Amino acid sequence: MFKVGIIGGTGYTGKELLRLFSSHSKVEVCYVSSRDRDKKVIDDYPFLPKKFSNLVYKDIDVTYMKDLDVVFLATPSNVSHKIIKDVYDSKRLIIDISADFRLDSDDYLQWYNFEHMSKDLLSSSVYCIPEINRKDVNKDTKLIANPGCYPTSILIPLIPVLNVVSPSSIIIDSKSGVSGAGKKIEEDFMFCEVNESLKAYSVGRKHRHIPEIEKYINKWTGKSKKVVFTPHLIPINRGIISTIYLTGVSVDDYRKAYDTVYKKYESESFIKITEPQIKNVIYTNQCHFNMYHDNNETMIIVSVIDNLIKGASGQAIQNMNIALGINEEEGLC
Amino acid sequence: MFKVGIIGGTGYTGKELLRLFSSHSKVEVCYVSSRDRDKKVIDDYPFLPKKFSNLVYKDIDVTYMKDLDVVFLATPSNVSHKIIKDVYDSKRLIIDISADFRLDSDDYLQWYNFEHMSKDLLSSSVYCIPEINRKDVNKDTKLIANPGCYPTSILIPLIPVLNVVSPSSIIIDSKSGVSGAGKKIEEDFMFCEVNESLKAYSVGRKHRHIPEIEKYINKWTGKSKKVVFTPHLIPINRGIISTIYLTGVSVDDYRKAYDTVYKKYESESFIKITEPQIKNVIYTNQCHFNMYHDNNETMIIVSVIDNLIKGASGQAIQNMNIALGINEEEGLC
Amino acid sequence: MFKVGIIGGTGYTGKELLRLFSSHSKVEVCYVSSRDRDKKVIDDYPFLPKKFSNLVYKDIDVTYMKDLDVVFLATPSNVSHKIIKDVYDSKRLIIDISADFRLDSDDYLQWYNFEHMSKDLLSSSVYCIPEINRKDVNKDTKLIANPGCYPTSILIPLIPVLNVVSPSSIIIDSKSGVSGAGKKIEEDFMFCEVNESLKAYSVGRKHRHIPEIEKYINKWTGKSKKVVFTPHLIPINRGIISTIYLTGVSVDDYRKAYDTVYKKYESESFIKITEPQIKNVIYTNQCHFNMYHDNNETMIIVSVIDNLIKGASGQAIQNMNIALGINEEEGLC
Amino acid sequence: MFKVGIIGGTGYTGKELLRLFSSHSKVEVCYVSSRDRDKKVIDDYPFLPKKFSNLVYKDIDVTYMKDLDVVFLATPSNVSHKIIKDVYDSKRLIIDISADFRLDSDDYLQWYNFEHMSKDLLSSSVYCIPEINRKDVNKDTKLIANPGCYPTSILIPLIPVLNVVSPSSIIIDSKSGVSGAGKKIEEDFMFCEVNESLKAYSVGRKHRHIPEIEKYINKWTGKSKKVVFTPHLIPINRGIISTIYLTGVSVDDYRKAYDTVYKKYESESFIKITEPQIKNVIYTNQCHFNMYHDNNETMIIVSVIDNLIKGASGQAIQNMNIALGINEEEGLC
Repeated sequence: MFKVGIIGGTGYTGKELLRLFSSHSKVEVCYVSSRDRDKKVIDDYPFLPKKFSNLVYKDIDVTYMKDLDVVFLATPSNVSHKIIKDVYDSKRLIIDISADFRLDSDDYLQWYNFEHMSKDLLSSSVYCIPEINRKDVNKDTKLIANPGCYPTSILIPLIPVLNVVSPSSIIIDSKSGVSGAGKKIEEDFMFCEVNESLKAYSVGRKHRHIPEIEKYINKWTGKSKKVVFTPHLIPINRGIISTIYLTGVSVDDYRKAYDTVYKKYESESFIKITEPQIKNVIYTNQCHFNMYHDNNETMIIVSVIDNLIKGASGQAIQNMNIALGINEEEGLC
Repeated sequence: MFKVGIIGGTGYTGKELLRLFSSHSKVEVCYVSSRDRDKKVIDDYPFLPKKFSNLVYKDIDVTYMKDLDVVFLATPSNVSHKIIKDVYDSKRLIIDISADFRLDSDDYLQWYNFEHMSKDLLSSSVYCIPEINRKDVNKDTKLIANPGCYPTSILIPLIPVLNVVSPSSIIIDSKSGVSGAGKKIEEDFMFCEVNESLKAYSVGRKHRHIPEIEKYINKWTGKSKKVVFTPHLIPINRGIISTIYLTGVSVDDYRKAYDTVYKKYESESFIKITEPQIKNVIYTNQCHFNMYHDNNETMIIVSVIDNLIKGASGQAIQNMNIALGINEEEGLC
Repeated sequence: MFKVGIIGGTGYTGKELLRLFSSHSKVEVCYVSSRDRDKKVIDDYPFLPKKFSNLVYKDIDVTYMKDLDVVFLATPSNVSHKIIKDVYDSKRLIIDISADFRLDSDDYLQWYNFEHMSKDLLSSSVYCIPEINRKDVNKDTKLIANPGCYPTSILIPLIPVLNVVSPSSIIIDSKSGVSGAGKKIEEDFMFCEVNESLKAYSVGRKHRHIPEIEKYINKWTGKSKKVVFTPHLIPINRGIISTIYLTGVSVDDYRKAYDTVYKKYESESFIKITEPQIKNVIYTNQCHFNMYHDNNETMIIVSVIDNLIKGASGQAIQNMNIALGINEEEGLC
Repeated sequence: MFKVGIIGGTGYTGKELLRLFSSHSKVEVCYVSSRDRDKKVIDDYPFLPKKFSNLVYKDIDVTYMKDLDVVFLATPSNVSHKIIKDVYDSKRLIIDISADFRLDSDDYLQWYNFEHMSKDLLSSSVYCIPEINRKDVNKDTKLIANPGCYPTSILIPLIPVLNVVSPSSIIIDSKSGVSGAGKKIEEDFMFCEVNESLKAYSVGRKHRHIPEIEKYINKWTGKSKKVVFTPHLIPINRGIISTIYLTGVSVDDYRKAYDTVYKKYESESFIKITEPQIKNVIYTNQCHFNMYHDNNETMIIVSVIDNLIKGASGQAIQNMNIALGINEEEGLC
């Protein structure tokens, strides 16, 4: 059994890690941090099996982490770059679910408005969507920057397409369930404000996932493309649907792209080319998508994931499985 | 008091007409048709005031319509073009909420798969979004083709913009509440199939509102433009949000468009340029929208309406008010 | 036109008053208080008609209230008893939507944990559910204690029944939409915590509406009865359903009760004995209920209202209409 | 690996069996019946892992069942009693998730309106809520009548209480998510009819789960008690909350009951005495409940389960695990 710790146990990604680990056969959760120190974890999450009954929240203190094989950072952005030095260690695997190790240091100033305090680790972190670049992770990997939810839903179908076609513009219209915002106690996320409504937010090159999407398009396809990205808030708990418009794509190019993508993902456990509906991916680590061609020379991709699983904690476990040499599907469905 | 009849009282637009008329001071509902003949209307709609207690469903029979000043056709598509001859009359105003009189006869073959049976009336019908072309309706108008829900949400902000800018592509990503589908007893619209999910449908130049959008862009701006249109089904009862991307639009053109639109709509009762959220327009006849410019030379418009009110029955009443010479806002909010 | 002011414009009942007044023909809203002073009211509530555009939030200051005919206190509990002295005036009608003037002074110590600071006004306040005791309100009424949401849903059907039958126990199982809690920015009311869930709260003689229910059962039927009351939180925006069990009631007594209730309410505009469903009363001032007899000597009443309208702001306007001598239904549906 | 078949693969309980079996390590699903014969099961349920790709729906034909160790009947009521003879076999375990083998033959006439066609098997069927009577199931068991969803949520906390206290009345107010109705394509279960609403149904000794609850109270406590039972339809996908009122129970008896129940369930994996909220049990096989005493001599129990798992397919698998001698928790959480 590998010993695992979670820093940030009271947010939604920490909660989902705990839920997923309750049926992971190779892992024991030994440490969970939270400000609510000494409180029993199971009191917050009564859905956990009784074997978690003795787990109590602890401070963030390296003495609790001594024997851990893996530490997950399930903190909001602008936390892990400040605390990672306390956690980092030559033997242990660290998986950061926040955005703090996905970008270049300048991006943090421009998009996140903070000065990165662990720049030396930025270059050694590995950003990994396993179905695209699992070869980049192995048992020597010490720091994984787990991809963001919107980027995961977008890059999985888009990267292999961009290796084949050259659209004149990339417009991405995404819709996310409320847990995508993290656990923020703000009026905007109160039940009566969200339910029976819907809005766009961060419209017009404002959302922080834009540099992440553009960086990895560039890295993985060699193409320096700008994207237009509009996220929307949807009254559901979990799930993202991304509708991606590539203009200036002929039918022939569309067909070539479809074939390329189909071949690439045919044997992937967690990827299906099928009619995408959020209800078919929630509570799973799967990404479903499909591709369409519009007469108007536009290729359309529609993609769905569970933002908390494939878009966060599930993909983090998938990455952990790879790094530890465990069956990649262990604990996931 | 004007005497009003409704053909198709059991669908969602018929129901909404009845709800809205319950607080309209100039109108008396005298006739409602439905297959459930002789059933009391208030038994289906117990929210109606008790003054409706004696109203019972009748057959579609012109003898019941003799004294009516206005007849609303609240039927699904492919009905009113077959029955309108029985209803049409030199004195009476007819408002068709279905799609049957919005397009040209060839469009019905191509997009709706039926041969139009009242082609002679197609040319005399008036398609009216009051804020754009209310001058086309007057007391001589006999047949109003009430606009569709998606097109209303799109054309209100888009038409004045297109009079100013010339985008290279128009991509529309719309999201609709479930009542937009009409009252269809099908698995796709069962609670457990829709709730906590989300999907795109009719992707790739398939939705029947495309010819309507393109026809009136052409008619009202003189520009023959094709649009890409992707609708999505959202787990809310009512409301539409349309996110519209116009590519190849400079910041300067964007500013010009914004000013033009602002001036045009400043004094309109039902239109506001503000942060669009569905919760602010449901149960109203209002359209809220805003405009944004993305660095990537793309102008973004986000627009919301209540699909059953401004997108159907409310706009139908607004059109009726104009045609009858009543205060345009009567019975609406 | 009567001039109206609202103290507490940013809560849900203040918001609903504004929404309802936008179509009330005899009233002009001249004053709204909120901590967000100088902010435009319409910026918070963009659904309001443009005629509200110049209304801005003000401090709570009697100079703004000089010319007002009516002041609504739309504050949380434990506010209006402290500020009412500043508002009270020999000419003006005050309607308190909070709980501060519904009970006896001891009740506030026991159930609300505060010492009432305007005990002298407690005895002069009139608690009014118009369909039960509208005769208690007239143009000399200066202070109306508007009933709570749960008590309204319960007392309307229950009071006339208790005048006829003598149950051995009264058990009330109520379920409320989230707006019933008021606008509290707390984790318990976040979308992801409420949606797709359901819980009982304040179980076991803890909820503050218990003394209100028992006081008015006593006052209106002469019977001193204790009730068991369990509220539940439901993932809907608005609406209450109360299921009331009266044990030890024979079929004959049930029939007598049904007839009595039917006769009492037959001609009431806002009350219907029909299959109660929340969807039929939301956005209305109506109460729908029905009565059933179980073989097991238990009589069951199921009752629904919109908690924000008949359970708060709508009933407050109904009470205002009565006090001002306006048509009781004005502005309501 | 045990070979399992499912009759009725297209209903909600069949779907949930398939979902749960996808992570059950001791079972292989070899046969699924449905009218949609020859269709791939994974096309209906794209969330299933790719190892299910070759499973296609078959007719109900015993030749497909030859090698099966277990057959689940996931059919609506009034089906399995007619087809069980074709499935029954001296070696194979049959688990009927429908109501057809839970009651006595007279009950089917009275409550279900059909003449039972396999009366001989009624007496040999075992009704099992494992936490109450798992000793009744063993490897010789051939037919398990899996308990209903409402009865499971009620009997788990109630049975041990009734062994200690003698209430004068038992009143049960239950609220169920929409999947509890099964997959019925009817207007009552359309999204727009259910969402943002709530209603009681089958009020007044009408619901078919009443004889089931009363039969097993009698069988397991020796007490012949009638219950009052009112179910409500709630706009959530899955989950039941039952609020149970026992009148005439003193505080002392309440405490005794609490202690008894606590001791009984302390070591059960799937049962927790904690604040019951539906969100904590959905997607699990758990039952959470708590007990309260009201001054008014009434004891209140609130209990939650996932109606599709502990209330149907999960408990069926738990029963299967027991009968097959597998770890009772296998495939469940």
